[in-house]
Amino acid sequence: MIAVDAMGGDYAPDEIVAGALAAQREHGVTVLLTGPPAQLRLVIARLGAGSELRVVPAEDVVGMNEGALASFRRPRSSIAVACQLVRRGHAQAIVSAGSTGAIVAIARQRLLSLPGVPRPGLAVVLPTHPRPTVLIDAGATADPKPEMLVQFGHLGVAYAQVALGAVAPRVGLLTIGAEPGKGNQLTRRAHELLASEPEGGALPLAFAGNVEGGDLMAGSVDIIVTDGFTGNVALKTLEGSMRFAATEMRSALTSTRAARMGALLQRRGLRELHDRLDAESYGGAALLGLGGTVVIAHGASTARAVSSACALAASLTRGNITENVRIRLGVQPDRRGSHFLRRDR
Amino acid sequence: MIAVDAMGGDYAPDEIVAGALAAQREHGVTVLLTGPPAQLRLVIARLGAGSELRVVPAEDVVGMNEGALASFRRPRSSIAVACQLVRRGHAQAIVSAGSTGAIVAIARQRLLSLPGVPRPGLAVVLPTHPRPTVLIDAGATADPKPEMLVQFGHLGVAYAQVALGAVAPRVGLLTIGAEPGKGNQLTRRAHELLASEPEGGALPLAFAGNVEGGDLMAGSVDIIVTDGFTGNVALKTLEGSMRFAATEMRSALTSTRAARMGALLQRRGLRELHDRLDAESYGGAALLGLGGTVVIAHGASTARAVSSACALAASLTRGNITENVRIRLGVQPDRRGSHFLRRDR
Repeated sequence: MIAVDAMGGDYAPDEIVAGALAAQREHGVTVLLTGPPAQLRLVIARLGAGSELRVVPAEDVVGMNEGALASFRRPRSSIAVACQLVRRGHAQAIVSAGSTGAIVAIARQRLLSLPGVPRPGLAVVLPTHPRPTVLIDAGATADPKPEMLVQFGHLGVAYAQVALGAVAPRVGLLTIGAEPGKGNQLTRRAHELLASEPEGGALPLAFAGNVEGGDLMAGSVDIIVTDGFTGNVALKTLEGSMRFAATEMRSALTSTRAARMGALLQRRGLRELHDRLDAESYGGAALLGLGGTVVIAHGASTARAVSSACALAASLTRGNITENVRIRLGVQPDRRGSHFLRRDR
Repeated sequence: MIAVDAMGGDYAPDEIVAGALAAQREHGVTVLLTGPPAQLRLVIARLGAGSELRVVPAEDVVGMNEGALASFRRPRSSIAVACQLVRRGHAQAIVSAGSTGAIVAIARQRLLSLPGVPRPGLAVVLPTHPRPTVLIDAGATADPKPEMLVQFGHLGVAYAQVALGAVAPRVGLLTIGAEPGKGNQLTRRAHELLASEPEGGALPLAFAGNVEGGDLMAGSVDIIVTDGFTGNVALKTLEGSMRFAATEMRSALTSTRAARMGALLQRRGLRELHDRLDAESYGGAALLGLGGTVVIAHGASTARAVSSACALAASLTRGNITENVRIRLGVQPDRRGSHFLRRDR
């Protein structure tokens, strides 16, 4: 069961509801929509899906320009209610196209921690060749401890295995300079931890050493581990550079009449290239390390993107990513039989 | 007088000597070459410049793959001797195309600190429109204090004024999220310092607030301030993305026979685009905040690039960038009449 925040996103609720319906019809995912019931009922009726979709009432909405403070300001928001559904065991994962900052803050506050993972990491899939690369953390935890980077490595491996079918994922550490001693204090210590034998029953990570900013799109490792500050700067730099390159390319290819004629001959190739360089092409981000995964779709998501996000959330749930992480970290289930510890313990 | 490390760079010493000669002949810069005299004399003779170029002996050479440890291993390297020339007042700036890590370490060890600037910052010029953007620090100081980011702001302003002719340069802080409270501990505190009144006689900075990774190529501010770790990751991510985009573009434009014909029609535009997207197009990096500027040219520099680097070093010297920084920071000259304090005081 996937809880879908029907009110998050530039095209909410119409495109979100349509996407959730498509996921349920086409991918066999069962969804619970959160939002104002009267408004959502109208949208559902318009889609001719009267009895197919269930709605859980949430009166408040987090705006797309709201940040982390929304977690305190809006206890009854559609995203907070979606988290509550996971916390109470009515759903296993959440999909939202709302503000990333607000979603991360609300999920950290409302969902339980995974044992052995004190802070969540945001995983983003970069469209590298020949295989995609998982960048984690892309912005959930700005000041992690070195140990947390090792945990992010385990979260990334679990994600690559469950969502991308990676067989023996290799983990790189994002830093400056290739040698082990290079970097800042955080990465030098994290390098030592990643390179040493795992502690306390954790499985070993296939650590491939340091990678640099220039390796982000090289596809040389399966997972790139970093703190949420550096990861967010790097991801946005990547997106900004691709946008810059695409704009420059467009002007180069249409600068003269001859060039414009040339561009006509390249229509197909250019369209494909545009799709590949598209800043949004890496798909949604997955917030991992909490008792329940949150798939954060782009703010501008249409029904199709929401449907894909629901399918990703369902596949992470089916692949039992949280149990997978627990085993990787060698953490025993809680004595009370729950796999999740309360954040405040 | 500019000290030129004749032995640093992939094409040293031939291209370095040729570039230094060109700078002296064309830009009216006087250079001192450092390196093994016998070897350099041969190169100089081959260029027909027998009496034009002065050589200061340096027996040792730092390899292109050597890092910071070279500062201890090679006290008589050509770059160490070049630093010594500045320290003793025989030259005002240094040009080297050697390993950045080694140059930064050697310069930090051998040159004096500027008063009020405990750590140097590496400034790189990004080719943004309509005006270029200075990114500082691109990798000299991996773990700075928040106060140092403010000093980097002043170094960046002085650089933009002296080297780029900026009139009222605006300073942005690289972080995650646009609001003041966003970021990690370092940038939250740096934001407070940048936004508050300057202390101790320093001139005010025109602080334009937070910028994100996606703004690096936007040209919205004149200077982007960051720590050396984040700056280096961002710069290399930028370069890697441009390379990735260029490769993808090449394959899109030559994927079919029609597309190849189209590319013929676009030759000129594509060549110009290639130059603009070229990872190396941002020119050399300038290490600022020491008693003497070091212009670090690319490892693959040819004579022309070395000549430009010499011209940049000369213009920073003529513009009196160190005095400029001293005034900006409101620091009085040393009582003994020297503007520079010893690092160990």
